[in-house]
Amino acid sequence: MTLIAHIGKPGSFSHLAARAQYGIDHTYLGCSSFADVFKIVSEGDAEIGVVPVENSLSGSLYENYDLFNIYPLSICAEQYLKVEHFLLAKKSEGSGEERLKQIKIVYSHPKALEQCKEFFFAHPWMKPTIANDTATAAAQVAGSNDVSLAAIGSEDSAHLYRLAVYARNIEDDTYNYTRFIYIHKSTARIDQANKCSLQLELAHKPGSLVSMLQVISSHSLNLTKIESRPIHGKPFEYKFYVDFEFTQKQVDGIENILSEIKRCCDRMKVLGVYKAGIINV
Amino acid sequence: MTLIAHIGKPGSFSHLAARAQYGIDHTYLGCSSFADVFKIVSEGDAEIGVVPVENSLSGSLYENYDLFNIYPLSICAEQYLKVEHFLLAKKSEGSGEERLKQIKIVYSHPKALEQCKEFFFAHPWMKPTIANDTATAAAQVAGSNDVSLAAIGSEDSAHLYRLAVYARNIEDDTYNYTRFIYIHKSTARIDQANKCSLQLELAHKPGSLVSMLQVISSHSLNLTKIESRPIHGKPFEYKFYVDFEFTQKQVDGIENILSEIKRCCDRMKVLGVYKAGIINV
Repeated sequence: MTLIAHIGKPGSFSHLAARAQYGIDHTYLGCSSFADVFKIVSEGDAEIGVVPVENSLSGSLYENYDLFNIYPLSICAEQYLKVEHFLLAKKSEGSGEERLKQIKIVYSHPKALEQCKEFFFAHPWMKPTIANDTATAAAQVAGSNDVSLAAIGSEDSAHLYRLAVYARNIEDDTYNYTRFIYIHKSTARIDQANKCSLQLELAHKPGSLVSMLQVISSHSLNLTKIESRPIHGKPFEYKFYVDFEFTQKQVDGIENILSEIKRCCDRMKVLGVYKAGIINV
Repeated sequence: MTLIAHIGKPGSFSHLAARAQYGIDHTYLGCSSFADVFKIVSEGDAEIGVVPVENSLSGSLYENYDLFNIYPLSICAEQYLKVEHFLLAKKSEGSGEERLKQIKIVYSHPKALEQCKEFFFAHPWMKPTIANDTATAAAQVAGSNDVSLAAIGSEDSAHLYRLAVYARNIEDDTYNYTRFIYIHKSTARIDQANKCSLQLELAHKPGSLVSMLQVISSHSLNLTKIESRPIHGKPFEYKFYVDFEFTQKQVDGIENILSEIKRCCDRMKVLGVYKAGIINV
């Protein structure tokens, strides 16, 4: 049994992601911030932590990339999860349409509320109201007898909090997935690893990015992400987040490839060498 | 006098950005969505539109990049603006500390509320509550006699809505700037242009990204942004957002450089050739 740290209460999106990845036979530990997830894992109080790093609509979550610079952890797995939003409320008398009319306040995470703009536009009597996360929202509704309250959350959190689903897939954009990473302290090799994530600072001279990418290209590695980010306090300098995939044949040569990449950079930090997740959306 | 479209009410962050860029001698038109800003400008009902595309903490706003694929507009200017959050409320009796104790509900844009987590942690009796934007939040407080209401907004919106500032710079991270772009229909050359933004789809073969970047490097152009984004419906294919700066000497050759870049790509869309903004944070 493994102890796995996530953000939020039971039923939060991170908790459900971890349960889908590792199953129900483990112990899950809710934390109040992403920094706490990193802290708890680096202090050994949990073996694995899970945090989101990217969403197909809202882009990269720099906050979690930055935590690798504070805590000495690495990525041991990744997972892509489709984001689906449901309107959850206490079961009550009346048809679905009548029940919707009773709902005045809808709690959820700010991002979830933002992603259901069209639903709120079509149901202007419902007031979107911030909750810490989707699970807190569901818990708040489950804990009250007020039928005018609802939450936006997943179908799983409906089951967990015994709420009824009154509207399905209310997200504006159905192509919406979140990429989660799993972090640990161990430096052991991961079985079947075929993906690598790097944080790079390049020499501030023309062509340094090209040289680095030439290493990736010359080994026929599959670049799956590159993103520049300005470095605070160093105007006109950038850090880069780079992910690439490699084949099973290349796994033994990966250390040499990383050394080659490092020679093109001022600084290189390996965030992890792990098995790529599957995008199934 | 130019008609400039922005999102939100008077006093919204976009409105204040545009006023800082163009001055008060123009007419500003508030829109209810980013898509409306693009629509109004493309229909000729406003000459210029302003939208945010990037934030130093939360990354790129893909929503606004996507709108260039619907509306035939281009970037005519850019601007970097520091994000500062202030607690605004009606002026009332009592010292600052006593006044803070009276405040129970704090309205703002979800992003602004998120960026003031530490303030809410230190003032747990205040309940963060979603508003459409910071200006709507300020207007809501200004329009009520309830002294328990406050808003998070800029100092300018305090002036605009005659509210007092009860806490300054309550944002968690003070290195927080937003990059705005200005969009128009015209295809006329911009004076003193020295920056170019592209959206690219690269041939799905190894080395196509390197070839494209080699063009940028061979002309000693200054790459200021590169970001890959998965293409919906085309697994393992990516679009790239690329920005580069050039010198005044290169301005006449820019069309040739763009042709060279285009030869490395499946598709190239020039989002704009314009004068670079200054990061002053």
